[in-house]
Amino acid sequence: MTYCLAVNVNDGLVFCSDSRTNAGVDMASTYSKMFCFGKEGERQMVILSAGNLATTQGVIQRIKRDIKQGADVTLMNVSHMEDAADYIGGLSVAVQGKYSSPDRSFEASFIVGGQIGGEDPRLFLVYPQGNHITTSSDTPYLQIGETKYGKPILDRIITSATPLDKVALAALVSMDSTMRSNLTVGPPFEIQIYERDRLGLRRYHRFDAESEYLREIKRVWDESLNAAFNRLPPIAWAFSWDERADGENAASPPQAG
Amino acid sequence: MTYCLAVNVNDGLVFCSDSRTNAGVDMASTYSKMFCFGKEGERQMVILSAGNLATTQGVIQRIKRDIKQGADVTLMNVSHMEDAADYIGGLSVAVQGKYSSPDRSFEASFIVGGQIGGEDPRLFLVYPQGNHITTSSDTPYLQIGETKYGKPILDRIITSATPLDKVALAALVSMDSTMRSNLTVGPPFEIQIYERDRLGLRRYHRFDAESEYLREIKRVWDESLNAAFNRLPPIAWAFSWDERADGENAASPPQAG
Repeated sequence: MTYCLAVNVNDGLVFCSDSRTNAGVDMASTYSKMFCFGKEGERQMVILSAGNLATTQGVIQRIKRDIKQGADVTLMNVSHMEDAADYIGGLSVAVQGKYSSPDRSFEASFIVGGQIGGEDPRLFLVYPQGNHITTSSDTPYLQIGETKYGKPILDRIITSATPLDKVALAALVSMDSTMRSNLTVGPPFEIQIYERDRLGLRRYHRFDAESEYLREIKRVWDESLNAAFNRLPPIAWAFSWDERADGENAASPPQAG
Repeated sequence: MTYCLAVNVNDGLVFCSDSRTNAGVDMASTYSKMFCFGKEGERQMVILSAGNLATTQGVIQRIKRDIKQGADVTLMNVSHMEDAADYIGGLSVAVQGKYSSPDRSFEASFIVGGQIGGEDPRLFLVYPQGNHITTSSDTPYLQIGETKYGKPILDRIITSATPLDKVALAALVSMDSTMRSNLTVGPPFEIQIYERDRLGLRRYHRFDAESEYLREIKRVWDESLNAAFNRLPPIAWAFSWDERADGENAASPPQAG
């Protein structure tokens, strides 16, 4: 399994991915799921991948080969981020189609984000079917892979106005919650921050399992959450419990009557 | 969708369920998913249901009819909680089999918990296939329906030693997280606490959407989580960001080289 997320806020973009790849829990390995393409001062893109490893590797290889061979359409010559998403969707469908059969599919999803020239930074989620969605100010983030465990914290913390450092931290906490509940998501975690209008990358970090900082976040977050929970108004004071009737109490609660 | 959970701790059992039923978001209705069966001083059981509404209603009706007609095996005469789980699994498979076809299934899951005489309180999750699993001291809770959003908070708070009131509160917070991230889980929420060796029910509460207490939990939890997040060590101080190479930076991070 995989968990990748990317966030589009006023100050720029944040990308975060885990590196656990598995085909059954006894065949787990570590692969980066974050790929960067760009030309300083002109364009910058970051791609995150989830799903079948053969498909995602095939797509990334095709992207690189197209750039090297100067193909008609490449990430280095598309004019809009939306065209980049379209292009990746097309490659993905092609690679999947080469191996899939009715009873066997090799689906993969991608997040691609970045900025081309003076356009706004954009973020897209490319579905296995090749189509894509983008973010909005109400929904500034996109996730692929094991998305549910880490969603509540994003919903609580992130808005379009959140500064990049805080977004990166929320992404790490979201990663931590996911890792805790799904063994097949694991470190190293990679974070890439793209600052709006930078048209290049400056801020990348890879957190290994032994990262002191990761461990410190975990510890403080665990403590704080337990403390927060203990501050909640005790349930015993909230109301009087209802006494249920005796005997064959198929009548309590009401619908079981 | 549905979210139900039940917890087995040293002091007893806690059951919690939402009441949203839907077949598409334009056909949402409210049904209780909590059903109680018992005989004061002899046995007490609580059932939670998720999945196809026709199946779950069919199973609950069969359970009641069997009791009324004095069938050979009923929830009122089984000797062990495990037999109750087996019985419910059998009913579920039978009801599903009546209507299913290869391209159409009407699956349902159940949680059944309770106590019979001097035995320990037990909790079981009955799968659509009719088989079941129980809790352990490491995994004291069971969930059915939309289980992922609400799992991280349970993992953090609940152990076998957690008092019943605190377990009930954790269940409500877990419900709240789930509701926030999945529109098709919604109030009223029902909570039933079973105190070990009580062999009867005393503590039931139904929280409506307008519940003052629910709103207060939500508010304090939101505030506390945001405050907790702001107490985390700032990411900027943790390490120096890596500077990426210029040019076509397909080489950063490493694997995209």
